[in-house]
Amino acid sequence: MNIKITGSGSYIPAIVEKNENFHGHEFLNADGSVINAPNTVIVEKFKAITGIAERRYAKKEYNTSNLAAFAAKKALLDAKIDRETLDYIIVAHNYGDVNYNSEQSDTVPSIATRVKQILGIKNPKCVGYDLMFGCPGWIEGVIQANAFIKSGIANTCLVIGAETLSRVIDKHDRDSMIYSDGAGAVVLESTNNEGGIIAHESATHAYDEAHFIYFGETNKHEANDKRRYIKMYGRKIYEFAIVNVPQAMKSCLDKSGVDIKDVKKILIHQANEKMDEAIVKRFYKLYDMEMPEGVMPMTIGKLGNSSVATVPTLYDMILKGDLENQAINNGDIIIFASVGAGMNINAIVYQY
Amino acid sequence: MNIKITGSGSYIPAIVEKNENFHGHEFLNADGSVINAPNTVIVEKFKAITGIAERRYAKKEYNTSNLAAFAAKKALLDAKIDRETLDYIIVAHNYGDVNYNSEQSDTVPSIATRVKQILGIKNPKCVGYDLMFGCPGWIEGVIQANAFIKSGIANTCLVIGAETLSRVIDKHDRDSMIYSDGAGAVVLESTNNEGGIIAHESATHAYDEAHFIYFGETNKHEANDKRRYIKMYGRKIYEFAIVNVPQAMKSCLDKSGVDIKDVKKILIHQANEKMDEAIVKRFYKLYDMEMPEGVMPMTIGKLGNSSVATVPTLYDMILKGDLENQAINNGDIIIFASVGAGMNINAIVYQY
Repeated sequence: MNIKITGSGSYIPAIVEKNENFHGHEFLNADGSVINAPNTVIVEKFKAITGIAERRYAKKEYNTSNLAAFAAKKALLDAKIDRETLDYIIVAHNYGDVNYNSEQSDTVPSIATRVKQILGIKNPKCVGYDLMFGCPGWIEGVIQANAFIKSGIANTCLVIGAETLSRVIDKHDRDSMIYSDGAGAVVLESTNNEGGIIAHESATHAYDEAHFIYFGETNKHEANDKRRYIKMYGRKIYEFAIVNVPQAMKSCLDKSGVDIKDVKKILIHQANEKMDEAIVKRFYKLYDMEMPEGVMPMTIGKLGNSSVATVPTLYDMILKGDLENQAINNGDIIIFASVGAGMNINAIVYQY
Repeated sequence: MNIKITGSGSYIPAIVEKNENFHGHEFLNADGSVINAPNTVIVEKFKAITGIAERRYAKKEYNTSNLAAFAAKKALLDAKIDRETLDYIIVAHNYGDVNYNSEQSDTVPSIATRVKQILGIKNPKCVGYDLMFGCPGWIEGVIQANAFIKSGIANTCLVIGAETLSRVIDKHDRDSMIYSDGAGAVVLESTNNEGGIIAHESATHAYDEAHFIYFGETNKHEANDKRRYIKMYGRKIYEFAIVNVPQAMKSCLDKSGVDIKDVKKILIHQANEKMDEAIVKRFYKLYDMEMPEGVMPMTIGKLGNSSVATVPTLYDMILKGDLENQAINNGDIIIFASVGAGMNINAIVYQY
């Protein structure tokens, strides 16, 4: 028995938020002090490091659960299965449904329940739950689905990553330019076909790293705004990631028994282009190799960091031919990898 | 190989909130209209139906993650294991950390990460994630841990249910008297000893039932309070639960092959005493039996409904001898069962 992705779908929100749209923002340092540079310079520097030129925001009327359902519908059509046969709906997210202009996360009922209802699935044996694991949540959902299928309690799982980070950003923080909205989904099934999940690896680094990404107040201290927003220590994350992510990927690849030379694509979470390059270069260096051209498809330039949605969206876009000069062919070995709040890291070695 | 609970712990918050403390509240109907009864009568009627005389609230300085860590420490001591050997920390909750007097849920990093950090666990291979599945979240966490152990990706899992519902209640809603705070935890291990998890059952009823428990505005409409609180359609839940929970329990017991006469205890989620009695009576009726005396230990009178914390706390209290005339002995068959937001239902047949 092999466990394979039999369908995928993604939803890219309609609102294009370009870097120029941040030119009018009042950016401040975390201590509230003024940044000694005009916004045009701040934004250019941001783009040079992260690679982000624009990002997507969900329309006001949509929440995370709506985005999740849009992607799920496409994945179900793609997999050509009767949705009533699903055993699990697993939704990875981190903030629940945050209504536009609200500061409250709405997580009851679960986003999985909402998706199930939107999809009109009646079978009560289709179990829906939400998973919170930072940005690596979608990959972790695939690892969990894999365990359910292996242990015999499921045959068919829908695994979704969906997030509306645009609803939790501090507009006085330069890091607000990183975050984006989106959703991606796959159907995972047990099958007699070749390939599928070969190995996986997960880790939680909490001892020193728990609060590298956290919920904090606005940089505009005098605003008297007690609301909290997504915040991060970017430098600490960078240093952490470039050491620990390559190691975790290596550990996963070595477990799989696959030769590094057979790896065709690395689909890595996209939070910062420079960081991703450093991670993948170091990964290859662990095998005394140069990073091959085109091995790491990127979407960050136009899609930003949509957290749990990034990796499944990237996978879906390649398969649908939406990413120039990128393809995944029968038998290809792919590594999925992610790092994010927790600090959590995970990877899957997968044969298409 | 059997999968067994090898240790348990619970944390019962310090603040005792008695029914009398609600005598000064201004209770209103959902439509904002005045309830034609004095509060003493409202509160007495509430007690007659739910069985709740008092409930527990966490101290201001504690959040869900603190409660979770208190219970986890006890469970780890009870299991006599080196915490660095844990493969998973699974935390079931529904609202994250909600600071006292805040309306925001803080879920990044995950509660599992926070618990892991408080516990001082360094091993990165100990993976922490959060699970949202309504009140049945803790039982679902045990089912997931069971799958991880069965599929070979884990040997030892810490499964915690923790919640501070006192932070999300509308004081103008009579239902606010139901909710409570708490935490319970178990260590689950693969073992060669007899017993353990024999069968389990889960269900998500979302088609008509998704929003039976939801996030809604205060009953005091003119208060101009846009904040949302935990809300429920109690009558609908009651009617749903007394039909579907006995069926799910029966399905689980039949799967286990255990004779109903061998069931020693039913540890059921406690949201309403009358509802629990109706569920368990109907369950026995499905086997043409009367409900045996003492089969359903209750804590609701003094602890209220602490959501995901209720069932593990109940289990731990019985084992520690904290519940009068209740005991679980070697070889005893127990049914764990729960129902809550989703609407989710689950059950486990377990041999101690």
